[in-house]
Amino acid sequence: MSDQIHKGLEGVLVAESELSYVDGDAGKLIYRGYTIEDLAERARYEEVVFLLWNGHLPTQDELDAFEESMAEERHIDDALYDVLERLAEEDEEPMAALRTATSMLSAEEPEDDAEPEDLDAAIRKGRRITAKIPTLLAAFDRIRNGEEPVTPREDLDHAANFLYMLTGEEPDDVAAETFDMALILHADHGFNASTFTSMVIASTLADVYSSVTGGIGALSGPLHGGANQDVMETLMEIDESHMDPRDWVVNAIDEGRRIPGWGHRVYNVKDPRAKILQTKLEALSGSSGERKWYDYTTTIEDYLTNQVGLPEKGIAPNVDFYSGSVYYQLGIPIDMYTPIFAMSRVGGWIGHILEYQTENRLIRPRARYVGSKSETFVPIDER
Amino acid sequence: MSDQIHKGLEGVLVAESELSYVDGDAGKLIYRGYTIEDLAERARYEEVVFLLWNGHLPTQDELDAFEESMAEERHIDDALYDVLERLAEEDEEPMAALRTATSMLSAEEPEDDAEPEDLDAAIRKGRRITAKIPTLLAAFDRIRNGEEPVTPREDLDHAANFLYMLTGEEPDDVAAETFDMALILHADHGFNASTFTSMVIASTLADVYSSVTGGIGALSGPLHGGANQDVMETLMEIDESHMDPRDWVVNAIDEGRRIPGWGHRVYNVKDPRAKILQTKLEALSGSSGERKWYDYTTTIEDYLTNQVGLPEKGIAPNVDFYSGSVYYQLGIPIDMYTPIFAMSRVGGWIGHILEYQTENRLIRPRARYVGSKSETFVPIDER
Repeated sequence: MSDQIHKGLEGVLVAESELSYVDGDAGKLIYRGYTIEDLAERARYEEVVFLLWNGHLPTQDELDAFEESMAEERHIDDALYDVLERLAEEDEEPMAALRTATSMLSAEEPEDDAEPEDLDAAIRKGRRITAKIPTLLAAFDRIRNGEEPVTPREDLDHAANFLYMLTGEEPDDVAAETFDMALILHADHGFNASTFTSMVIASTLADVYSSVTGGIGALSGPLHGGANQDVMETLMEIDESHMDPRDWVVNAIDEGRRIPGWGHRVYNVKDPRAKILQTKLEALSGSSGERKWYDYTTTIEDYLTNQVGLPEKGIAPNVDFYSGSVYYQLGIPIDMYTPIFAMSRVGGWIGHILEYQTENRLIRPRARYVGSKSETFVPIDER
Repeated sequence: MSDQIHKGLEGVLVAESELSYVDGDAGKLIYRGYTIEDLAERARYEEVVFLLWNGHLPTQDELDAFEESMAEERHIDDALYDVLERLAEEDEEPMAALRTATSMLSAEEPEDDAEPEDLDAAIRKGRRITAKIPTLLAAFDRIRNGEEPVTPREDLDHAANFLYMLTGEEPDDVAAETFDMALILHADHGFNASTFTSMVIASTLADVYSSVTGGIGALSGPLHGGANQDVMETLMEIDESHMDPRDWVVNAIDEGRRIPGWGHRVYNVKDPRAKILQTKLEALSGSSGERKWYDYTTTIEDYLTNQVGLPEKGIAPNVDFYSGSVYYQLGIPIDMYTPIFAMSRVGGWIGHILEYQTENRLIRPRARYVGSKSETFVPIDER
């Protein structure tokens, strides 16, 4: 190994993976060989999670069994509701509440004495966490709004049940399908910071709860999971300014403002997930008659593309640029966007943990020490 | 960057650091220029934490102010005691309980609206977490044993107050000083897996609570923080076997058993911390008259060194080989050894977060994709 410093580990290969492939120059994303476009349009979130964890798309029987166990495991203990209530009283941030509640789920894990190397137990623990996260999130959001949590329904799929628990009403097909698609788009993306966090933790043979709790922490950072919320807040600022959206963006760029939702460590062209969400947003806008968010978004994109020429510099719209306004159209509170990202990405985190632990090696890099090597200790009364 | 895979990131330099220097061939450990031997013998844990966070040993005034704020911040809210009670009822592992409770501390953080880039706020948050972790741990241990938690005392230092809260009695000087020294020895150690976890999380600009919670998760793994507990269990096995300790180890090696507390990713010779703890263990054994743990430990070391020749292969005793029996002599429950490691290492985690965020860069490595790139999507009813 050279003595070069790899700050941010940019471009450093830390392991092989069969889970997802990102071609940043072509703007392609693949999960285990399937294009994100195929999966978004033709699969459901549960199928994609099954694919990530097991290496193949499920047969109908496999999917039925998987969905049944996921649905059964949606329920959480009363102690969790109590903690969520307490966190809501303290005005805790949703991502912090999710981090605490997910960590606490391990206390009700039935297989908590499984050996760290038992990957069959790990996949079941992962399934339980994946099943319960939506329940935690929906309950927290309702409790903080003074509403009773809604008990999960076992007859709805993962996406529809979440919207049902969040709103208390069964979603229509368009909402359920759109949300399911958004979950698929966010399920995996190589060794991003939260996935890598989960892997570093898992590499010590810590359990799945520790890994997922760490992943939630990493995703909560504004440089990782927070951008779709920033995008929506920007769009709302345009709306409130009553300016022509093009004038607004011209002004913003003149003032040197950074527009959120642009640029990505891996993509040099438009993120394929952004393209899918853009189409969806246009369809939603058409059916709802509320076109302004789509208009603001595309006006910004057009200006940054054709006038500022950002894509020529490798800076293009990423997934966050379109996901915020899709969630907004679905009536999801803005500060739940990052938690929803976690609710989806947990599928990827667990997939990568399982894959890495199959041939585990402790992840432990080195620092280049640049401090002093010989200070003379001076007792405190002589300092 | 080459296309070589750096599994485990062994030897990969990810950043510069001035915090600690490990010379694995010479068996040297330095914190900001001071040898671990000097610090262990002549400083206290609070001084070392101040040093790690601020870059210099404190003057008396600086130390007084730091200790005062640490002492004031030891108290935790009733909600935390309630959660610890609930976790104890569920027989939660101490490290998992610590992970959940530390995560929940953020709900009572007074500066929770500080900007992510505000490192002054981050250091205060870090101080609050460092101050409260011993309270969480001692309370959890007492609650699970059916005892009332002991309110922290502000007139004792960090180490003595922990032992006081754990046992309900003020420790004698030998116990307090020994424990303080153990905290110093474990406070930092380069980019170990838990420190690196904290850094990856912090690199997203997530807050200190997320980083520390992640660090606790990583430290809970048996390949990282769990080994001192394994060592003690091995020593107890020797004790219960009523065998001559040398016969026991000869047998164990014949049977191909791995002796815990030997070998380290970074050290090729005896860990300097092990040497310090060995001396301390010998002294404790002399004063308590209970020499057997020291005898078992040194018998194993002698055999593995002089007969098996492990040190010639770069495998030598690490810090865990001696810390377990020191903690045992102090009357600390075996499953609290790893939590105590966390209680100490949090000083290093926070030091590294602060240092890394000063010139932050998102940590996001790459995977080498080795899966299929072109699967044809088959609808579920045709699979």
